[in-house]
Amino acid sequence: MGYRKLTEEDIGVLREICSEDRVYVGSEINEDFSHDEMVEYGKFMPEVVVEAKSIDEVSRIMKYAYKNRIPVTPRGSGTGLCGGAVPIHGGILLSLALMDRILEIDEDNMTAVVEPGVLLMDLTKAVAEKGLMYPPDPGEKSATIGGNVMTNAGGMRAIKYGVTRDYVLGMEVVLANGEILELGGKIVKNSSGYSIKDIIVGSEGTLGIVTKLTLKLMPLPERMISLLVPFGGLDECIEAVPKIIRSQIIPTAIEFMEREVIEAAEEYLGKKFPDKSADAYLLLSFDGSDTEEIEKIYERVAEVCLDAGAIDVFIADTDERQESIWDARGAFLEAIKSSTPSMDECDVVVPRDKIPEFVKFVDTLEERYEIRLRSFGHAGDGNIHVYVCKDDLDDETWKHRRDKVMEAMYNKSIELGGQVSGEHGIGHAKIGYLNDALGHVYMDLMRSIKLAFDPEGILNPGKVF
Amino acid sequence: MGYRKLTEEDIGVLREICSEDRVYVGSEINEDFSHDEMVEYGKFMPEVVVEAKSIDEVSRIMKYAYKNRIPVTPRGSGTGLCGGAVPIHGGILLSLALMDRILEIDEDNMTAVVEPGVLLMDLTKAVAEKGLMYPPDPGEKSATIGGNVMTNAGGMRAIKYGVTRDYVLGMEVVLANGEILELGGKIVKNSSGYSIKDIIVGSEGTLGIVTKLTLKLMPLPERMISLLVPFGGLDECIEAVPKIIRSQIIPTAIEFMEREVIEAAEEYLGKKFPDKSADAYLLLSFDGSDTEEIEKIYERVAEVCLDAGAIDVFIADTDERQESIWDARGAFLEAIKSSTPSMDECDVVVPRDKIPEFVKFVDTLEERYEIRLRSFGHAGDGNIHVYVCKDDLDDETWKHRRDKVMEAMYNKSIELGGQVSGEHGIGHAKIGYLNDALGHVYMDLMRSIKLAFDPEGILNPGKVF
Repeated sequence: MGYRKLTEEDIGVLREICSEDRVYVGSEINEDFSHDEMVEYGKFMPEVVVEAKSIDEVSRIMKYAYKNRIPVTPRGSGTGLCGGAVPIHGGILLSLALMDRILEIDEDNMTAVVEPGVLLMDLTKAVAEKGLMYPPDPGEKSATIGGNVMTNAGGMRAIKYGVTRDYVLGMEVVLANGEILELGGKIVKNSSGYSIKDIIVGSEGTLGIVTKLTLKLMPLPERMISLLVPFGGLDECIEAVPKIIRSQIIPTAIEFMEREVIEAAEEYLGKKFPDKSADAYLLLSFDGSDTEEIEKIYERVAEVCLDAGAIDVFIADTDERQESIWDARGAFLEAIKSSTPSMDECDVVVPRDKIPEFVKFVDTLEERYEIRLRSFGHAGDGNIHVYVCKDDLDDETWKHRRDKVMEAMYNKSIELGGQVSGEHGIGHAKIGYLNDALGHVYMDLMRSIKLAFDPEGILNPGKVF
Repeated sequence: MGYRKLTEEDIGVLREICSEDRVYVGSEINEDFSHDEMVEYGKFMPEVVVEAKSIDEVSRIMKYAYKNRIPVTPRGSGTGLCGGAVPIHGGILLSLALMDRILEIDEDNMTAVVEPGVLLMDLTKAVAEKGLMYPPDPGEKSATIGGNVMTNAGGMRAIKYGVTRDYVLGMEVVLANGEILELGGKIVKNSSGYSIKDIIVGSEGTLGIVTKLTLKLMPLPERMISLLVPFGGLDECIEAVPKIIRSQIIPTAIEFMEREVIEAAEEYLGKKFPDKSADAYLLLSFDGSDTEEIEKIYERVAEVCLDAGAIDVFIADTDERQESIWDARGAFLEAIKSSTPSMDECDVVVPRDKIPEFVKFVDTLEERYEIRLRSFGHAGDGNIHVYVCKDDLDDETWKHRRDKVMEAMYNKSIELGGQVSGEHGIGHAKIGYLNDALGHVYMDLMRSIKLAFDPEGILNPGKVF
């Protein structure tokens, strides 16, 4: 897929559409726009960066790009992990970061209407002030809600509350040709034609540019309690998870972590973790409106954990104690990243009861391929993040071992009935694995759908397939 | 869109694929296959009815139909309300009713794997025996799960638990050309390419034929309590709904009903309703694992209702009392249907806080158009069913008034930010309204998607658009 280079005239038109101070070329372009959080996957400079401020601007930019077949890569905060918001074919990098207004919080319908550039942490705060909650809870709080929707981000609370898709009731989308489409709305049921909204959720900017979102909110639980549960070894720790689920109690989150990752987070944050005596931990949280009820539930879960071999169960019921644990959990990715010059990431999802098998399999790979692996993740919903660390390997050895390990993990995931990505998406970095996992019938259908939305192939080209 | 008539040869091939006793032609075809629950929308006889028993049969039938451009209308129980499973272009009526096996109930992953012909009531019972619940709860319990998925059915419990889409984790689909596609799986998170599963949910058999489903289950709540709340008038009754929601308590269901509908149900069932002293009622239910907790919650809601002008609050906490109320609720549609020689139905959904405005608007139409209207529905999620009754009107007057009233209701819904269908779908009966509501950009995109899946236009032609 070849695209022509942008001309002075193109830049002039973009400057007419947006004000001059929001159009950047050449050395004015911040190098950050050439990559996301995974520099490992390469740097690709856009020919121009445009910071849109309104749907009208986005629509006019797309109309022009469509007519002139200029690739457009939409981008939020750039916190992705698969190169999804990286302009691998140059062209226009369309930043939506300035479209960051929370337009409405509607308490009667329990909905929020927001622009795509709103940060997750700002949304969380704004709705909490009204006693409401936006349940999806990805680790990266400085991600934009637009980016979350485009990857169907999951996060910690998926086991109880589901994923981003479940909270997108409506959207306004600018199509490849600049036309504006309204989808869904402030309604909780809808059987009115194909759910185009749902094919756009998770499409990584390849089908349209979201310029407004109507999100479903829930009442903010009044209480939250966390349990930190140490285990003598990884096996016992991870095998406790299906036992918890089988007890028919649904915690808000079930995370698993190993001592090495906790130590890395301690070092990165310069803060002590409450306990470090054990090799592996489960971190559970419970929320609700009634303290007594939460207590009853977590007491039952504590029993299940002790029966499953837990050394102890630490209860964190004050804000301070919970923060010390969850801050560490939130820093895992950065902590691992800072421990190695380069790394690759596997974001597999498997059926919940296959988590022990998958985690134990990963455990064997470290020795087999002589490479450092660090993993943590959402044990309760079968979504694990495994980081392959380069450390001091030379480039060739690194690439070779990395590829072997990644391939082994994806193959294992597929064998267990899992998928390539639980929440980070495909971007350009995981296309090969997606191809292998979905097969040609699925990929061909995706291509036909892409063609229906974007016949000129200008929307985030080179992503997903 | 013209299709050639089926030949003896075609029938012969179908008889080879399926066994002879599952292929029906001519006078062997039960007349029921020519319509669904709304005979009002016309009768259309298929040229052949084939009862498939396996995915292999479905795949072979589709391969043959694709090659020979024969229209195929998939059908479950035929309990639809928009003519979605009616073979308006003749051809093959492909019944999936015999594919009715529950293949697995997986307690560790809290999933069920089922064939599409499983009845909702059978699924409910089977999972309850394992202490689990399939939350979507459409009124029609003899509908198939396949039909529910194809219309993205909603039901009573959507306010708390969401709709069918939220519980479809995976599916096996036979495409128009007979190819078999696996989508999703026993996983609760997925960001691996476009969510083709989600465009198939709600597509009314126009994009593919679902032959297997992986459904998400939840723990079965141990307790359920219902409140029947009488109000002096419809206005007060319906205006209490946003007040309940604003109190940030989420009941399992909030239904509204008027005395006339209750009386019709009493007559239809030959059973007395617990109370009939008031003009309008809210029926609420609450579920959970802890009786005390449920009591606390419903006491708060009872207070909100009394503050909002409720005459009383009746608590139904025994199975027997709850049954007497919910049985009546379940019979509303049949009761209204049996009261008139013909009727039309409007299944609008509006934002929850617009329910009072919409219901009051409907109330004015009865007088304005001199036609009997009966309504009830899911007040808690903004989804209302309004039935327009022919009674003893002559055909011409009926058609004229019916069209006026239907148009007025759909226009009002759109004006209030609503949609054409909350849960029943479009079928062939509501296409005009969908066109008006969505506009040409949306409809054109739907057509392009249809073309990507079904270039020969053989899958349930004449439906949705």
